[in-house]
Amino acid sequence: MSSSYGENLRLTVFGQSHAPAVGMTLEGIPAGLPLDTEALDRFLARRAPGRNEYSTARREADKPEFLCGLRDGVTCGTPITAVIRNGDARSGDYEELRRVPRPGHADYTAAVKYYGFQDYAGGGHFSGRLTAPLCVAGGICLQLLGRSGITVISRIAAIGGVEDRGELLASTADKPFPTVDEGRGEEMRRAIAAAKAAGDSLGGIIECRVLGLPAGLGDPMFGGMENRIAAACFGIPAVKGVEFGLGFGLAALRGSEANDAFCLREGRVATETNRAGGILGGITDGMPLSFRAALKPTPSIARKQKSVDLETMEETELAVSGRHDPCIVPRAVPCVEAAAALAAADALLGRRKDRLDG
Amino acid sequence: MSSSYGENLRLTVFGQSHAPAVGMTLEGIPAGLPLDTEALDRFLARRAPGRNEYSTARREADKPEFLCGLRDGVTCGTPITAVIRNGDARSGDYEELRRVPRPGHADYTAAVKYYGFQDYAGGGHFSGRLTAPLCVAGGICLQLLGRSGITVISRIAAIGGVEDRGELLASTADKPFPTVDEGRGEEMRRAIAAAKAAGDSLGGIIECRVLGLPAGLGDPMFGGMENRIAAACFGIPAVKGVEFGLGFGLAALRGSEANDAFCLREGRVATETNRAGGILGGITDGMPLSFRAALKPTPSIARKQKSVDLETMEETELAVSGRHDPCIVPRAVPCVEAAAALAAADALLGRRKDRLDG
Amino acid sequence: MSSSYGENLRLTVFGQSHAPAVGMTLEGIPAGLPLDTEALDRFLARRAPGRNEYSTARREADKPEFLCGLRDGVTCGTPITAVIRNGDARSGDYEELRRVPRPGHADYTAAVKYYGFQDYAGGGHFSGRLTAPLCVAGGICLQLLGRSGITVISRIAAIGGVEDRGELLASTADKPFPTVDEGRGEEMRRAIAAAKAAGDSLGGIIECRVLGLPAGLGDPMFGGMENRIAAACFGIPAVKGVEFGLGFGLAALRGSEANDAFCLREGRVATETNRAGGILGGITDGMPLSFRAALKPTPSIARKQKSVDLETMEETELAVSGRHDPCIVPRAVPCVEAAAALAAADALLGRRKDRLDG
Amino acid sequence: MSSSYGENLRLTVFGQSHAPAVGMTLEGIPAGLPLDTEALDRFLARRAPGRNEYSTARREADKPEFLCGLRDGVTCGTPITAVIRNGDARSGDYEELRRVPRPGHADYTAAVKYYGFQDYAGGGHFSGRLTAPLCVAGGICLQLLGRSGITVISRIAAIGGVEDRGELLASTADKPFPTVDEGRGEEMRRAIAAAKAAGDSLGGIIECRVLGLPAGLGDPMFGGMENRIAAACFGIPAVKGVEFGLGFGLAALRGSEANDAFCLREGRVATETNRAGGILGGITDGMPLSFRAALKPTPSIARKQKSVDLETMEETELAVSGRHDPCIVPRAVPCVEAAAALAAADALLGRRKDRLDG
Repeated sequence: MSSSYGENLRLTVFGQSHAPAVGMTLEGIPAGLPLDTEALDRFLARRAPGRNEYSTARREADKPEFLCGLRDGVTCGTPITAVIRNGDARSGDYEELRRVPRPGHADYTAAVKYYGFQDYAGGGHFSGRLTAPLCVAGGICLQLLGRSGITVISRIAAIGGVEDRGELLASTADKPFPTVDEGRGEEMRRAIAAAKAAGDSLGGIIECRVLGLPAGLGDPMFGGMENRIAAACFGIPAVKGVEFGLGFGLAALRGSEANDAFCLREGRVATETNRAGGILGGITDGMPLSFRAALKPTPSIARKQKSVDLETMEETELAVSGRHDPCIVPRAVPCVEAAAALAAADALLGRRKDRLDG
Repeated sequence: MSSSYGENLRLTVFGQSHAPAVGMTLEGIPAGLPLDTEALDRFLARRAPGRNEYSTARREADKPEFLCGLRDGVTCGTPITAVIRNGDARSGDYEELRRVPRPGHADYTAAVKYYGFQDYAGGGHFSGRLTAPLCVAGGICLQLLGRSGITVISRIAAIGGVEDRGELLASTADKPFPTVDEGRGEEMRRAIAAAKAAGDSLGGIIECRVLGLPAGLGDPMFGGMENRIAAACFGIPAVKGVEFGLGFGLAALRGSEANDAFCLREGRVATETNRAGGILGGITDGMPLSFRAALKPTPSIARKQKSVDLETMEETELAVSGRHDPCIVPRAVPCVEAAAALAAADALLGRRKDRLDG
Repeated sequence: MSSSYGENLRLTVFGQSHAPAVGMTLEGIPAGLPLDTEALDRFLARRAPGRNEYSTARREADKPEFLCGLRDGVTCGTPITAVIRNGDARSGDYEELRRVPRPGHADYTAAVKYYGFQDYAGGGHFSGRLTAPLCVAGGICLQLLGRSGITVISRIAAIGGVEDRGELLASTADKPFPTVDEGRGEEMRRAIAAAKAAGDSLGGIIECRVLGLPAGLGDPMFGGMENRIAAACFGIPAVKGVEFGLGFGLAALRGSEANDAFCLREGRVATETNRAGGILGGITDGMPLSFRAALKPTPSIARKQKSVDLETMEETELAVSGRHDPCIVPRAVPCVEAAAALAAADALLGRRKDRLDG
Repeated sequence: MSSSYGENLRLTVFGQSHAPAVGMTLEGIPAGLPLDTEALDRFLARRAPGRNEYSTARREADKPEFLCGLRDGVTCGTPITAVIRNGDARSGDYEELRRVPRPGHADYTAAVKYYGFQDYAGGGHFSGRLTAPLCVAGGICLQLLGRSGITVISRIAAIGGVEDRGELLASTADKPFPTVDEGRGEEMRRAIAAAKAAGDSLGGIIECRVLGLPAGLGDPMFGGMENRIAAACFGIPAVKGVEFGLGFGLAALRGSEANDAFCLREGRVATETNRAGGILGGITDGMPLSFRAALKPTPSIARKQKSVDLETMEETELAVSGRHDPCIVPRAVPCVEAAAALAAADALLGRRKDRLDG
């Protein structure tokens, strides 16, 4: 269980890479939200494969069909379900993977968990393809947040050790390669090309900020914004670390260097710095909510790797064929935004229950 | 809401620093577990204040009273509730904090969230004192896990930039200062003393491993072990980052360097390395589950800090008086273990539902 | 929110009567269950319209398409999603209902709840059509239960005041009109025909039993079998009462008449009678779990009824045109079984967590 | 699991009859509610034993101690925990019950569920004593509801076949025996006395109404007001049936007799009758929410009853000694109100999330 997320809204993601479809149901979005499908499509296009070097042929394939939850394009209050059909499933390609799990993938753990009944084709439910419905949900949440003046921005902070420069202050969504510093972006692309040429892959770091959040969102203990965002972000395959504000960097500072002094800005309480990433005690403080997610390199690499044949129980070798992104980070950027949007929308709706009257 | 955690067991943590008590209710622990209260007390003692430099006077105060859930010291299957009375509450000390929030604490965000009705004394529900009931729950889970041969070990990996050396292979619970390398531990203590002398504080990193976990625990997407552990760990005040395996370090590696090759070890599937921290696709792979949590420095420091008087809405200065740990990291070690134990026990119980028959 | 059900498995029902589709996602069904689609279709056929007096034309339309959750027809452990396309939606017919709510339907309450953005066509998400995906989920649960020797049987206990005779001991699923006493069934049909001729409708009572349940299922307090079954049953539109064992009849008895004496039967603990309906303290006692659900008459009737025009805020009259079942009870029988199967499967899976070891 | 209830607030009830305490934690009550402890005590007094024929000595024993969740008597937004100490526990009295389960009680099913580790003394967690913390939670919810002009009233509708007369229009809380018609109340008391004299017990029916609820509360499908109230009510031991509006009576009516015509009353939409009990499609329609709960007779009776010795596995006889209420119905009246208040408060808080903006 637990392909579901959320307390005040509830997302259920379903599907397998080579099943008829992937999709999502999102409960709890209030009625009356006109769904801007063009904006949603633009958001989904950022995740779609083939955006840069490759053909755009498959892009249309990721267009969601809304089965319910709308009336005349406006949310009607009841569950929203959207499905994305899987196109050219070629399950035959994956028969070997049933026996020989790919290092770094969930092939082996799924085989154990599901007692051999897992859908191994294309990674099944563990495929990165499941981030498409995550982005559908996140895209809807972004539109809900937009009504309250809340936006989500992000950038590639690092790929293969190359770090972006400058501060993340504005959306990079329109850039073909979403870094703040385009020179560094160009370096990252070269690093990806080099890794690809070597039959290898790269990981990276995505930085994300939620702007415009009012103070007071989130709950204590396990309901904090950090808990909520982390719980959503680790739903993205490849994410192996999440940190807020200066994150791991805070561990090496002194309190006097780490605390954000309170001040007044335009008559309102603010903090002079934002090392805490806009969260104190799990609750937003009105500053930009800022976090970073670390993504491991794409596990699918052309190089030969050691594995085990689960049928014969002998050690063997494996080379992952097929088209695979040498670096998933660029396509994961909207996924991280989607996770942030989900968590923020969930907390925003939950905030309404804090009032004594009304 | 959401001072609750868990899917297959459910922990509810309650209390405020200066209310009559803090405590916890743990539902879902199977009947028949003899509770080893001495082992639990030893576990709680590791979190208790005054373990090293200070008097041991307050240690006894953290002894939980079990109100229910046991019969003759054995779990009876229904909710377990334990409370820890708060001793010498001096709420008067905190009256100023109602108006002038301490930087780095939840004073301000709680005031906003609860519309001024928050219990500001001692941080209220946001106090580190709430980790005492977390450790009660974690200590019970550890005993449950122990029956399946699962143990949780951890160490201080860094404090104030001083890093521990060596690999975490065995428990450090018996050490007065839980590092692998005692020389480095000594350096850390000196760093803490120096910070304290300067009216300042230090943060650090805790590394934790869950040993003996069978492969197949956890759920896909939002129910993965990373999601579960992160959701629990961020419930510990001061935690600002969580990473699994090599974590953020993976972002700079190539796939060929990051993947863990499968191999056979004593006839069973294992991985040659463990950069993934024992988790693939959110599911345990049978290797040690390994993660690290970053903790910010104690926000309470003797130095003057800038803040805002929320009543007059004027900028002001604040010096946090009272006894405060100059570094919370040593006492947070069992808290991280407790969070890991909770998540592991939750997943272990959930694993039983995966079987088709039985 | 809360078109979701379950603790150990989780059902989400989505769709509107005149949206592109209705459907369901069922999480938590263990991997390895071969789905007998013919048995499922037979189960769904019992709910489908037009089974008796009418054409069978629409029956095929209710065939679910499984989008995921299966591999080669066997559950693969991850969420199962099935959709049923809505055929000849004629939303135009319903435009009047937007303004003039039908008595006994959710038209008015949905308009208030969703601030006028509800999907009013055909009752939207409140339509009886949503019981089709409920039956898909229930049908899957029945197959899961079947592996443990658990079956669900039911009958029409009363329609329009005509009561069935005899005890419910075996399935009535193969009967065209599911009563124990066929003479009484014939009387009920005549009563339905008479009501229909009068432009009116009838309600009734459905009795349901779950056979083969082991003792020990369910949880205390709010997790009892009564709570779980009632929470599922009231999800069926028209259900207005649920009682277990002798139910309301128990209120008029003395304790000596109501208690079920324990006895030994074939060496096992049993009860001599079963007035409690197989549940004590919310937990199954090993006897047949027995309950009854009361269904109000179909609110759609040809007769003129008083209502209010929500636009002009004037009182007005309304006659509900279109094809409507003069009595929904026969088609609701499998829905009640589905609700019972869901609750039983949820409890059966949950039971596994009660064991201390294993 | 599942001694917890609620979606927008969350109640956890803990304790056993003869453990040190019973109690409850209530999360989600907004900050700023001044808790009227006198009103709460009056509410709890209605449930307390010994209210009529007996001494009032034990009444004080049920006074809850609030461990947290308040500051200066006002809710502070974080979890509220209250405990009620168990006084003169005499576990020794119950040793026989460990072996010989009482008919009608949960002794046997608890023994099976908890593999013999159940706390059998006084019914353990299944004791009616657990309704005391339920009433604490319900009493708090009543005060929350009161701010929105919502009240809960109820009456004994029947005991031992004697039915009350008249309509439930006002609170009966101040009456020593809460019926509308006092003559009928007197008949009921005589019936109880007669049953008691015969070493027997009686059951009954409680009718409850929630007044002042706005239209639009509740959710579709499994989140309807019926589902929520039933899920709470069946948490009260002895409740074996719940019906809304005319309930089972609706099953014998025609649609034209069962539908509630819409009309205008003081310029607002209302219904001419209220056979639906104020709920359509699970959502409140603005009319009084009305339901009835059937309670079985107290299973503890002085008469000899058949049972089984679980140790020797032989049939035997049992007479339940000790002081037991010959009819639990009068004391269950506030429990039903508490369940209704919980469900109503949960729905009221949830309603806030329906708004698109705000």
